[in-house]
Amino acid sequence: MSNKPIILVTNDDGITANGIAALVDAVKDLGDVTVVAPDSPQSGMGHAITIAEPLRLERVSIFDGIVHAAYSCSGTPADCVKLAVSRVLYRKPDLVVSGINHGSNSSINVIYSGTMSAAVEAGIEGIPSIGFSLLNYSHAAEMDAARNIAHKIAKSALENKMRIGTILNVNIPYLHDQEIKGIKVCRQAKAKWVEEFEERTDPHNRKYYWLTGKFVNMDNEGNTDEEALANGYVSVVPIQTDLTAYNSIDYLTNEVFNEI
Amino acid sequence: MSNKPIILVTNDDGITANGIAALVDAVKDLGDVTVVAPDSPQSGMGHAITIAEPLRLERVSIFDGIVHAAYSCSGTPADCVKLAVSRVLYRKPDLVVSGINHGSNSSINVIYSGTMSAAVEAGIEGIPSIGFSLLNYSHAAEMDAARNIAHKIAKSALENKMRIGTILNVNIPYLHDQEIKGIKVCRQAKAKWVEEFEERTDPHNRKYYWLTGKFVNMDNEGNTDEEALANGYVSVVPIQTDLTAYNSIDYLTNEVFNEI
Repeated sequence: MSNKPIILVTNDDGITANGIAALVDAVKDLGDVTVVAPDSPQSGMGHAITIAEPLRLERVSIFDGIVHAAYSCSGTPADCVKLAVSRVLYRKPDLVVSGINHGSNSSINVIYSGTMSAAVEAGIEGIPSIGFSLLNYSHAAEMDAARNIAHKIAKSALENKMRIGTILNVNIPYLHDQEIKGIKVCRQAKAKWVEEFEERTDPHNRKYYWLTGKFVNMDNEGNTDEEALANGYVSVVPIQTDLTAYNSIDYLTNEVFNEI
Repeated sequence: MSNKPIILVTNDDGITANGIAALVDAVKDLGDVTVVAPDSPQSGMGHAITIAEPLRLERVSIFDGIVHAAYSCSGTPADCVKLAVSRVLYRKPDLVVSGINHGSNSSINVIYSGTMSAAVEAGIEGIPSIGFSLLNYSHAAEMDAARNIAHKIAKSALENKMRIGTILNVNIPYLHDQEIKGIKVCRQAKAKWVEEFEERTDPHNRKYYWLTGKFVNMDNEGNTDEEALANGYVSVVPIQTDLTAYNSIDYLTNEVFNEI
């Protein structure tokens, strides 16, 4: 045991993804690092947890010599955090980092994000946490600039003792180091996906549907993550776990449910 | 085509669950009802969407004579809403209802809830939506009182033209009709699960872990869903999709990331 910070690393693309290797590299000098990550890709899992099946945890060697210990887990990113905190680490970690995701989790994408579900789970447990995502979906994307950004942000979070329960959604533009203009703490843009389903017919003459979609940013008000990213900045959005729409309470009480 | 409201019904326990039958019964007289629900239970799926596999949609007969049409879908609750809006209904529905879930989705449970992910998905698409959950996990739970509550709430939402994008998380205490004191529009209680994993060893001498946990309400400030439910009221919490923790932006900008 040392006095160094304990850092838990996870992701949703699976323990063999390039993104988690870059993240391990980014934080390895900042503390005692343990990796607990899914044994297979979990993208689009949202904040899923595994209730109906037991979880498996397997010691793996891929980060030997770099981290304290690494495990693959049969569950989701949220499961990984729960299991790591409850069964793997001897005390609560000082920081949980998740990613680096291959693809954006900006604006409304945060809701569908396995990467962010790990960070949110940590936040619920009172652990400062950061989800990192790179704006490139390719699994062969160049990670150098993103790794440097992740290092700086994790270092600041640790050195400045980011408050317990703080959850950050960090998105990184796909640019070279010197092209990134800096970081902006900002808000989630109001945006959505306009879905389209492509209908196909299988060899047995049954229809099936592939989800595709077009991202639409409906927000022109400034200080959003989409704006920061479009201008070459890293976006940092603090995330809350209280989903109450407070400004609707009076309206609903007085105008919708006043008679029941 | 009629001038009646179009109502989409879905859930996360699967199309054969008692809860969705009760919900269909609750709303069948309020408009033209279409059911698109998962073909198998999806509990704990959070806001998952299916990207890597195509979706199947199957016309089913279980609600024949009661609803306009019913389909089972191979995807998650969020997938069901996307596919229904995009491929099944000829126009956007006036209301999406999800449930009745067998088990609570109050306070922090909203984050893990497949039932609520369907409602949230509808809300993102600008459709008023309501997720209903009953505080009883048994699949044989008595649904009469919950059905009556769901009917009243859906009726009020339609008659008073609940605003587009409004998402309600409705939890119903497991009580008889006359024991339910009324409904309370309230906020999400600050609560969490304290996880425990039960370790077991399989016949091949490998360890595995079952998730269990204890629910802890850390909120004593009043007007919460937990308080309403404990006092015999139905809790109605409006939900937002902007997860930004606005009150952390200045702190993070000035105290954590001021040097990068």
